[in-house]
Amino acid sequence: MQTLNETVKSILAPDAAARAQAHARLERLTMPYWALGRLMDLAEDLAGMTASARPPVQRKTIVTMAGDHGVTAEGVSKYPAEVTPQMVHNFVHGGAGINALSRLVGARVVVVDMGVAGDLSALAKAGKILSRRIGPGTKNIARGPAMTRAEAVRCIEAGIDVARELGPETDVFGTGDMGIGNTTPSSAIVAVMTGAPVAEVTGRGTGISEEQRLHKIAIVEKALAVNRPDPKDALDVLAKVGGFEIGGIAGLILGAAAQRKPVLVDGFISTAGALIANGLAPQAAAYMIAAHRSVEQGHRVALELLKKQPLFDLDLRLGEGTGAALAMNLVEAAVRILTEVATFDEAAVSEANA
Amino acid sequence: MQTLNETVKSILAPDAAARAQAHARLERLTMPYWALGRLMDLAEDLAGMTASARPPVQRKTIVTMAGDHGVTAEGVSKYPAEVTPQMVHNFVHGGAGINALSRLVGARVVVVDMGVAGDLSALAKAGKILSRRIGPGTKNIARGPAMTRAEAVRCIEAGIDVARELGPETDVFGTGDMGIGNTTPSSAIVAVMTGAPVAEVTGRGTGISEEQRLHKIAIVEKALAVNRPDPKDALDVLAKVGGFEIGGIAGLILGAAAQRKPVLVDGFISTAGALIANGLAPQAAAYMIAAHRSVEQGHRVALELLKKQPLFDLDLRLGEGTGAALAMNLVEAAVRILTEVATFDEAAVSEANA
Repeated sequence: MQTLNETVKSILAPDAAARAQAHARLERLTMPYWALGRLMDLAEDLAGMTASARPPVQRKTIVTMAGDHGVTAEGVSKYPAEVTPQMVHNFVHGGAGINALSRLVGARVVVVDMGVAGDLSALAKAGKILSRRIGPGTKNIARGPAMTRAEAVRCIEAGIDVARELGPETDVFGTGDMGIGNTTPSSAIVAVMTGAPVAEVTGRGTGISEEQRLHKIAIVEKALAVNRPDPKDALDVLAKVGGFEIGGIAGLILGAAAQRKPVLVDGFISTAGALIANGLAPQAAAYMIAAHRSVEQGHRVALELLKKQPLFDLDLRLGEGTGAALAMNLVEAAVRILTEVATFDEAAVSEANA
Repeated sequence: MQTLNETVKSILAPDAAARAQAHARLERLTMPYWALGRLMDLAEDLAGMTASARPPVQRKTIVTMAGDHGVTAEGVSKYPAEVTPQMVHNFVHGGAGINALSRLVGARVVVVDMGVAGDLSALAKAGKILSRRIGPGTKNIARGPAMTRAEAVRCIEAGIDVARELGPETDVFGTGDMGIGNTTPSSAIVAVMTGAPVAEVTGRGTGISEEQRLHKIAIVEKALAVNRPDPKDALDVLAKVGGFEIGGIAGLILGAAAQRKPVLVDGFISTAGALIANGLAPQAAAYMIAAHRSVEQGHRVALELLKKQPLFDLDLRLGEGTGAALAMNLVEAAVRILTEVATFDEAAVSEANA
C-alpha cells in the first residue's frame, strides 16, 4: 500500500508556466489564430504535463496488460478464455493489430501478464513479456468479489512498478488490454463509477448478439447486487468487480502521472482502468489523453466523467492498445506544430488586420 | 481540352477482385470481426483503388496549390493578399504547418504556383516550386467571372500534368491549398453544386467576425447572381466563381484517379476542388479519401454530396494540406492492418463460438 500512497501523493498539477509559454508561442504561429484547433490544445496540455515548452514525445511505449476473468463461466463472451494466452503469443510473435500499428508509429509494445489463465512462464523467462501475475484469472464476479482488496492493491502497484521500470526509456505511455470477458467487469466499473444504468454501459464486446447482450446485462447487474461495490472507494470497486489487467492499467496511469509523462488511454477497458486511477487520484486525470471513442457503448459516459474528448472515432473495438498507438501520431503532430512551425516574426509574414 | 477529356475517360472503377481479396483476408485476422472498423473499410477501399491486395502507400506527396483571388477587393478576408506569396516562401523554407506535419509522416510537399499575385519566378527557377501560373490572381467574382472557360480548362489540365509528373514517385497524393480569400469562391462552388443556401455554406474563413461573415454571404450571393453558374457544368462553375488553385486541385484529383492512386482530400477548399472533379468525372470520387471535417461550416454539406465520411474532426481550419498530411498515417495504418496482422490460421488462435 506504501507504493500506491506515495505515488498518489507525488502526482503534481500540470506546470502552469510551461503551459503559458506554449500558449504564447502557439498564438504567434504563421497561421490564422488557433487554426490547428485541438492539436494546439493538445500541445498546450503536453507542455503542462511535461513541464516543458518542448515536450519530449519521441520514445513511445504501449503497455498491453493481459488477464483472465472468472465471469467467462457465465457465457458473457463469444470467444473461449484460451484465446487470452493465445493472443499473448500472437503479440510476442508480432502478428496482432497492436504490433502492426505500433511498428507504424515507432512505439515499443510491452506485454504484461497480470493474471492469465495459462502458463506463460517460458515467455517471461525469455524476456518476451513481463510477469506480474496476481493469479490465474479473477473469480466469477457474478458470485462474489473478483479478488481480495490486498490483490487489488497488488495489481495497481504492479502497474506503478511497470511504469517506473519503463519510465527511463519512455516519453509517452499508451495503455492496452487483452482478456477474454473483460468488457463485463469494465461495464460493471463504469456503471458503479458513473451511476449510469447497467443497460446503458453494457455493449456487444467482441460481437455478441442482442440476446446475449441482455444476458450480459443481467450478469453485470447480478455482480453489482452480489458485491455492492462502493463508488467512493475505487479499490473496493476494483476488488469486487474489476480485473487484474484493469488494475494494472490503473497503476500504469498513476505511475506515468507521477513521472509527469503523458499517457494515452485506449478504449473501453483502458478507460475503466482510468476511472479507477481517477478515483484514487483525481489529479492524475490531467495526464490522461483519451485516444478514441470506441464502439462499446459505455465508453462515452466513462469519458464524460473524466471530462475527456477523444481524438478520433473510427469505430474501433479491438483494445490491445490499438487506439493509443494510432493516437501517438497526433501527440507527435501536436509537438511538431509547437516546436517546428515558424512564428509571424520568424517568417516575415503579415498579420491579420485589426 | 484533350488532356482533360482523355483523363476523364481513363478513370476506371475500383478493382472488384482486389477488393474481394482484401475483404476475405480482413475477415480472417486475429481479432473480433471487423474490430478495427473504419480502418478496415479504408483498407478494402485502398485495395480497390490500387487494384492490389497489398496497396502501395509508402511514397506520399502533398501538393499545395497556391493562387490569389480578385474578390479580396471586397474585404472578405482578415488577411491582406500579400500573405499568399509570403506563405509560399514560408513553405519553401519549411516553416509552415504543412511542412511540420509532412515531415512527421514522411510526405514530400510540392508547392505549385497556380496564379499568385506576386513574382515567384525565382523560386520556380531554383526548382523550389512548380510554376503553372494561369495569371496574377482571378478576377473579382462579385463583378464577373473569375476566369475564362479556356483558363478553367488550363487550371485543371495543369493539375493533371502535376499528377502525371509526380506519379512515378508517388503512391498516395494529398491535396492542399493556399490563397487569401479562397473560402469565398469555395463557398460559392459548394452552394452551386449542392444547392444549399449560401448562408449555410459560408463560414468565418481565417477568423472574421459575424458581421464580416454577413458581408461575405452578401458577396457570395452577388457572385452567384452576377455570374449564374450552371451546376450541371462544372467547368462553368469553376470559370465563373472558382479559383486557379481550386481548378488545380480538381485536376490533381482527376490525374491521381486516372493513375489508380488514392488522393487524400484536405479541408473546405480542397473539397470544393473535389466537387469540380466529381462534376467532371463522378467515377473519380472512388479515389478520394476525405481526411477530416473542417471547422468551416460548408464542409459538411460538401462531403455529404460526395458521400464521404471524414476520418477525423479536430477543429482544423488551416488548409495547406495539413489534414491530408495527418490522415496519411491512417492510410498507412489501414494497409499495415491488411498486410501485417496474422490470420487465425497463421497464428493458431481459436475462433469465436458459432
